[in-house]
Amino acid sequence: MADWSAELEARQSHVRAILAEEGCDAGLVFGCDRHHQSFRYLTNFAPLLGDAWLLLAAEPVCIMTFQWQIIEARERSGIDRWEAAFNPLPLVLAAVRESGARRLGLVGIERMPVTMHAALAALPGVELVDVGSLVVRLRRRKSPFEVEALRRSARLTDAMLDAARAELAVGMTETELAARITTVALAAGADCAFETCVVSGVDHPVPIRRPTDRRIADGDSVMVDVGADLDGYQADATRTFVVGEPNATQRTVWDVILRAHERALEMCGPGVPCRDIHLAAARVIADAGYELTHRIGHGIGLATSYEWPAMDSERAPLEPGTTICIEPGIYIPGAGNMKLEDDLLITNSGYELLTHSDRSL
Amino acid sequence: MADWSAELEARQSHVRAILAEEGCDAGLVFGCDRHHQSFRYLTNFAPLLGDAWLLLAAEPVCIMTFQWQIIEARERSGIDRWEAAFNPLPLVLAAVRESGARRLGLVGIERMPVTMHAALAALPGVELVDVGSLVVRLRRRKSPFEVEALRRSARLTDAMLDAARAELAVGMTETELAARITTVALAAGADCAFETCVVSGVDHPVPIRRPTDRRIADGDSVMVDVGADLDGYQADATRTFVVGEPNATQRTVWDVILRAHERALEMCGPGVPCRDIHLAAARVIADAGYELTHRIGHGIGLATSYEWPAMDSERAPLEPGTTICIEPGIYIPGAGNMKLEDDLLITNSGYELLTHSDRSL
Repeated sequence: MADWSAELEARQSHVRAILAEEGCDAGLVFGCDRHHQSFRYLTNFAPLLGDAWLLLAAEPVCIMTFQWQIIEARERSGIDRWEAAFNPLPLVLAAVRESGARRLGLVGIERMPVTMHAALAALPGVELVDVGSLVVRLRRRKSPFEVEALRRSARLTDAMLDAARAELAVGMTETELAARITTVALAAGADCAFETCVVSGVDHPVPIRRPTDRRIADGDSVMVDVGADLDGYQADATRTFVVGEPNATQRTVWDVILRAHERALEMCGPGVPCRDIHLAAARVIADAGYELTHRIGHGIGLATSYEWPAMDSERAPLEPGTTICIEPGIYIPGAGNMKLEDDLLITNSGYELLTHSDRSL
Repeated sequence: MADWSAELEARQSHVRAILAEEGCDAGLVFGCDRHHQSFRYLTNFAPLLGDAWLLLAAEPVCIMTFQWQIIEARERSGIDRWEAAFNPLPLVLAAVRESGARRLGLVGIERMPVTMHAALAALPGVELVDVGSLVVRLRRRKSPFEVEALRRSARLTDAMLDAARAELAVGMTETELAARITTVALAAGADCAFETCVVSGVDHPVPIRRPTDRRIADGDSVMVDVGADLDGYQADATRTFVVGEPNATQRTVWDVILRAHERALEMCGPGVPCRDIHLAAARVIADAGYELTHRIGHGIGLATSYEWPAMDSERAPLEPGTTICIEPGIYIPGAGNMKLEDDLLITNSGYELLTHSDRSL
């Protein structure tokens, strides 16, 4: 807790400042399965299963669905008061009443079930205010502490990609390879940010799918898309390997991807609109006669796909402290799945790469 | 799909019958992260991430958050029409409008976010009816097809427990052992129903926690609680191992657990109220001077902890076709974590064990 207490205190006081600015005398942060990011940001904890509520009043109170992680939650958060019940709502209502809050800032309303919101709205003398977007905005710029956490996740993600390169062999199924890569994260005490993705072959490309029983054969492209999750901080990186000698199409496609990747990276820096980076990389790929079928990248942090931004639609300029991934990919018969993805931090002057695993085929 | 199509057709027609009985001309099933069970029941698919909607109208339509699993979803479900958008709500509203539904049966309203429900409620000329509990009730009794799916998951869970027994060694960390066990499921193309739990030692018992860096030592109790997930069907079983010679406390506690387990099992059969089974097992443990700190078991199926029933609070009698786990545990200093958990099917005359891994210490 030595490391975390000052950081959590700073985060909580930022959110308290937002609440004060909105005229709220308390805040209520809701998280549910896969949508615990704001809750985790303020507590350094997310339950493996179930809902979690943080009442940010004079003394913080946390309430969740399952009681069995309370010891762990208390240690990680430094917050003393944790309660749990399979239906946590009555505990939440009681805590709000007890706090005496009259104007309550809500975070996480976009995932809050109807019945829970209705029960909060029915609390007499309590006005609800949605402050979620302000907290999401705050979370977008990472603190040095957060960047260090992402660096650790990125290093472990590099180790997963290195393991994939070392263990890949003809005759192995995609599922077996994915299991071996996943084990690298698990054995280090981390989780995977998402299910390890292994797509092999050259004839049936598809941007992403789950690994199958398909056996890896000579000449295959093998795309490996992985991410380690350490303390909730999630990296996201991809390498593509060719088993044996790459064919002409694989070489050509990979060269285009390297150029699109380089083009995107050289544009990354503060003040650059995300969408411009997407369009520039898409242009490199289009000029070569191929298509970029998905966004060039997205935010990373306490989530991957659920983190800001989707770079193809986001027009806001990048800010220092923002962490993103850049992932050009081309998927055509003859080359199979070929994608290259790295994580990076936007700095005051440009960017810093967080993932470094060997990029060669 | 050969196996699944008849089964899915039967399930869908059961739900259509429920809808007809409630006077509905269509049904809308909502699932979100970790709460996809009813959706999966009707489609043999759940997205790895994001929301999923099934509109059960003349022709079924499925809508989800991410497009990248559509090929897999179509193959698994046999349903042709799948759509996706990062905000799927407009697609859902359009599909409902297109269907011409005037009375729409909703499933999954208890997890439906406020904004989504408000948008549905605002659809002109469409009345909403909550039919969720009827579908949950339908899902409680497993078809022979479902029982076979659970049997497969249970067999793989046995293999995970066998691997734990074989690989367990002094000096290994809990995390390393958990990773090796998890790999058994992943390499077989399955998932884990929940994070593999390894708790070792004798001095700091706690019913359940995540594995840590603690190194397993001679004399430790090592509790391993695991479950494989195959096609969404989730088993859940626990074994406890003692490294080296068990001490007197460990022997005594384990003997009590075996007796509580046996007592619970001999009561399992159709017509028996769940709570009675809990109380009988708790009595065996209390008579020996210990305490059963959690429910004796719960339902299993397309979920574990989120499946009906919590046997300590449920008064309904067991029905043939119900699948449950029985899990007596005692957690005291000197013995550490000791739990024994098996899965079983309630039959017309009693029960059938689904998990069979060696129960010895």
